[in-house]
Amino acid sequence: MSASPECVEIQLGERSYPILIGSDLLGDPTHVDAVPAAATALIVTNTTVAPLYGEALRRTLAGRFRAVHLLELPDGETHKDWPTLNLIFDALLSHGCDRKTVLFALGGGVVGDMTGFAAASYMRGVPFVQVPTTLLAQVDSSVGGKTAINHPLGKNMIGAFYQPRLVLCDLSTLATLPPRELSAGLAEIIKYGPIYDMAFFDWIEANVEALVGRDPAALAHAVRRSCEIKAAVVGQDERETGLRAILNFGHTFGHAIEAGMGYGRWLHGEAVGCGMVMAAHLSQRLGGVDAAFVQRLSALVERAGLPVTAPALGAERYLELMRIDKKSEAGEIRFVVIDKPGSAVMRSAPDAIVREVLAQCCVD
Amino acid sequence: MSASPECVEIQLGERSYPILIGSDLLGDPTHVDAVPAAATALIVTNTTVAPLYGEALRRTLAGRFRAVHLLELPDGETHKDWPTLNLIFDALLSHGCDRKTVLFALGGGVVGDMTGFAAASYMRGVPFVQVPTTLLAQVDSSVGGKTAINHPLGKNMIGAFYQPRLVLCDLSTLATLPPRELSAGLAEIIKYGPIYDMAFFDWIEANVEALVGRDPAALAHAVRRSCEIKAAVVGQDERETGLRAILNFGHTFGHAIEAGMGYGRWLHGEAVGCGMVMAAHLSQRLGGVDAAFVQRLSALVERAGLPVTAPALGAERYLELMRIDKKSEAGEIRFVVIDKPGSAVMRSAPDAIVREVLAQCCVD
Repeated sequence: MSASPECVEIQLGERSYPILIGSDLLGDPTHVDAVPAAATALIVTNTTVAPLYGEALRRTLAGRFRAVHLLELPDGETHKDWPTLNLIFDALLSHGCDRKTVLFALGGGVVGDMTGFAAASYMRGVPFVQVPTTLLAQVDSSVGGKTAINHPLGKNMIGAFYQPRLVLCDLSTLATLPPRELSAGLAEIIKYGPIYDMAFFDWIEANVEALVGRDPAALAHAVRRSCEIKAAVVGQDERETGLRAILNFGHTFGHAIEAGMGYGRWLHGEAVGCGMVMAAHLSQRLGGVDAAFVQRLSALVERAGLPVTAPALGAERYLELMRIDKKSEAGEIRFVVIDKPGSAVMRSAPDAIVREVLAQCCVD
Repeated sequence: MSASPECVEIQLGERSYPILIGSDLLGDPTHVDAVPAAATALIVTNTTVAPLYGEALRRTLAGRFRAVHLLELPDGETHKDWPTLNLIFDALLSHGCDRKTVLFALGGGVVGDMTGFAAASYMRGVPFVQVPTTLLAQVDSSVGGKTAINHPLGKNMIGAFYQPRLVLCDLSTLATLPPRELSAGLAEIIKYGPIYDMAFFDWIEANVEALVGRDPAALAHAVRRSCEIKAAVVGQDERETGLRAILNFGHTFGHAIEAGMGYGRWLHGEAVGCGMVMAAHLSQRLGGVDAAFVQRLSALVERAGLPVTAPALGAERYLELMRIDKKSEAGEIRFVVIDKPGSAVMRSAPDAIVREVLAQCCVD
């Protein structure tokens, strides 16, 4: 029996749900009491996470569902595509899963995004639960209902807004996370500072070594505060018609790096870390922040173990990749920029200025 | 300039939209005035419909969108699959379409279902308009927001509830419909009688030859009344948690015929026509209607040019196929049956009774 977890609530009317944050949650059946009853459950995970936590979750669910199936997907961003998504549909249909079957996404952002989109689409929608096992998924991707797969021409281009019924953030799973993945998660935590909460940014600056060292109390605070901010933003703008776009700070440049390098070469969080530095430079050129702020953000990203120098894809390639970003309109790239520390807005920028930022941030 | 069309409204709060029904609507730009403004539109159609109406719709939209692209999909239910759906995403991305791009589904149910699902999923949702050119699509599939593609193991298994912004039912397009397709549409019109409105059933009985003969006034009445009934049902239960399931009368048997014969061998409407006769027999055995009612429905289906004898797939194969129907729960098949003429309910039935129905309805 685990200690009582903390709870952050996502307020979306009839689509509201809790995020439970704590240690040793996976093995405690009481935490899934609120999940809708059904004959079957399908745990979707990957070949890396399954041996670590697959059986524990299966045992936890065995008392609640007559049949609990487990599907292992190949691991990695390169597999966030249709053929892999279709493995989930194949499993659901071959196990005779019906409209009430509950899907459990056990893993990182790729597993969560694909399982969520499968849940949104199978029989036009079945319930699902996020069980994020990476820091990035716990502080960002498992919360808020964005689901998607990649298209060869663009990241997360095919998907749905579809909310889970529950998010179970088991902090104990972070113990097995590779260091590179931990740093990738820190990128999305750092993000919440410049766009929303500079006091949290100060706290991260003071605690980044504790976070990198996996201090449990530091990680617990970082996950909870990140989820609170994300819940506040998503609760105001579920479908990203306005405010929610600020959560994409660093993502326009970051997606271009991911796609341009080939999915999986850079982790999503690494690309976002570097992308935030680039977006900070752009914000400075547009007058929102000063050089000292850019330097401060860049230093923190670097201390978190993340890259701060962008790959030299060439300015034309960057511009081409960024033009097919989801925030673009009528071919015009729209960036999330900091208009003052702790506040972000979405706006376009002259290509000439973007080229200057690229020249400044890319390695030769 | 066409005569002013009739309008049936689908009432779904902020997702409400009009169905416009009339002649020569395609060529009149005033009917798309209410469609959200955007830089680009993509007309999705197929190789059969494109030469007939593609250019007319493109001209109509040219004044409202800076760029109007047209994509021709291969024709037929066999292509209602992922590779064909992906052609839509390829076109959207290669044309630089953004979150505001409007999709127009110009064609029958297959084009409408696939375009709707593409619109639901592209960048997590863009606006779309249904422009149904078959009778079946005008009276059923284009209305109500069900979108989907088939999976090899089951029909319409992957999809979304996603409402269009407008349905443009141009009755003039029915002039070019092959007779087999016209009959297929009549199946879904006949359906509304036993489940909801026996007065309409009486009217169809009295007018079925006029409908088969494409009498414009008869078709206009049948389309309007069908849309009214569908709007009333969908308005009460958008996501099919209850009442809406009655619209699947004949579809459990019908989907089994379609999948069992191989998609495309039987038209969807043909399978539904025959499936309604089978479901009527089942309803009789369960005590909802008498033999005279079954005979009356069967005669009308036959007069509409539809098959009333089911293919001999074997009882086991039927049961296997019907168990993966979306209405099944925990492996139990659930049928829409008539509990009294003009009223339908969903219920399970003992396999033994279903076997009797199959023995009675299948050709040797």
